[in-house]
Amino acid sequence: MKFCSLCSANVVFRIPEGDTLPRYICTACHEIHYQNPKMVVGCIPEWEDKILLCRRAIEPRSGWWTLPAGFMENNETLAEAAARETLEEANARVTIGDLYAIYSLPHISQVYALFRARLLDLDFSPGIESSEVKLLSEHEIPWNEMAFRVIHDPLKRYMAERRQGKLAFHTGIIERSQKPG
Amino acid sequence: MKFCSLCSANVVFRIPEGDTLPRYICTACHEIHYQNPKMVVGCIPEWEDKILLCRRAIEPRSGWWTLPAGFMENNETLAEAAARETLEEANARVTIGDLYAIYSLPHISQVYALFRARLLDLDFSPGIESSEVKLLSEHEIPWNEMAFRVIHDPLKRYMAERRQGKLAFHTGIIERSQKPG
Ligand SMILES: [Zn+2]
Ligand SMILES: [Zn+2]
Repeated sequence: MKFCSLCSANVVFRIPEGDTLPRYICTACHEIHYQNPKMVVGCIPEWEDKILLCRRAIEPRSGWWTLPAGFMENNETLAEAAARETLEEANARVTIGDLYAIYSLPHISQVYALFRARLLDLDFSPGIESSEVKLLSEHEIPWNEMAFRVIHDPLKRYMAERRQGKLAFHTGIIERSQKPG
Repeated sequence: MKFCSLCSANVVFRIPEGDTLPRYICTACHEIHYQNPKMVVGCIPEWEDKILLCRRAIEPRSGWWTLPAGFMENNETLAEAAARETLEEANARVTIGDLYAIYSLPHISQVYALFRARLLDLDFSPGIESSEVKLLSEHEIPWNEMAFRVIHDPLKRYMAERRQGKLAFHTGIIERSQKPG
């Protein structure tokens, strides 16, 4: 950020009076431009014992597998965001169930929310950000080709808990690592 | 938003190619300036059977009661945000426990996360955004003077569940209403 989005004057990066962190402050209108973490929302779409996965057609991690998930939009609920992302990335309609996991990713200032979900039918296909969409059994899931740890880890736990018949909401933290996000 | 924060040229509000919602787009450098929901994070600080509440010294709802909560900052986890807000608003140190509730507030594009928490000691006092900080028993909580429904509703549920000895994580939606957010 170099310029004020309200008046186009230069901004400085400085701690405002009474605050504790530096912010972008307009040198003309004195507006403080806060920057905050973003929510990424998705779901684990099930059909019988199978899970719907998408192969990413865009960077980062193009060609790798993921669950349908993306940035939450203004004026929607968490569940609406999860359903919308599933429709956009997999052209699939789901019933969103319980929230299954929340992860903090402080190094990239993101919070991930993943819901349980049920596919309403088998009419799905790759959306614009996917190259392939597949319904996979547990043993078919390409664990070594998952795009992000924040998808891999909760899905792995989900499959283990499902086998034991006790799915439980959990929270987690994913810190910076060799692997992406 | 009127000007591009990267190059100071005018922005237009238009649906980008391949997108579904209008965004602020720079007419010179073509940067798309996305706007996303913000996370508000707080906790329910307990000491024995009492709860720590803050009386707000700032608008909105100055003079009304609330739990310590505020906007999550970049590069922190949800639990860190909850602890930081409690320190800032009540000068109180807590151990953050399980996540207790997540609410979507689509009309103001916010997501609230409330944690269970334990006060570490009785050394607390009003922070800069509070006029009063008090440890209150269930029957002392000023239910009709709570600043926000998103604080009132989960706290009410918390007290009821605690009486029954079964606290359970839940999610909720708070839509636009007569009362503030
Ligand atoms: Zn300005
Ligand atoms: Zn620009």
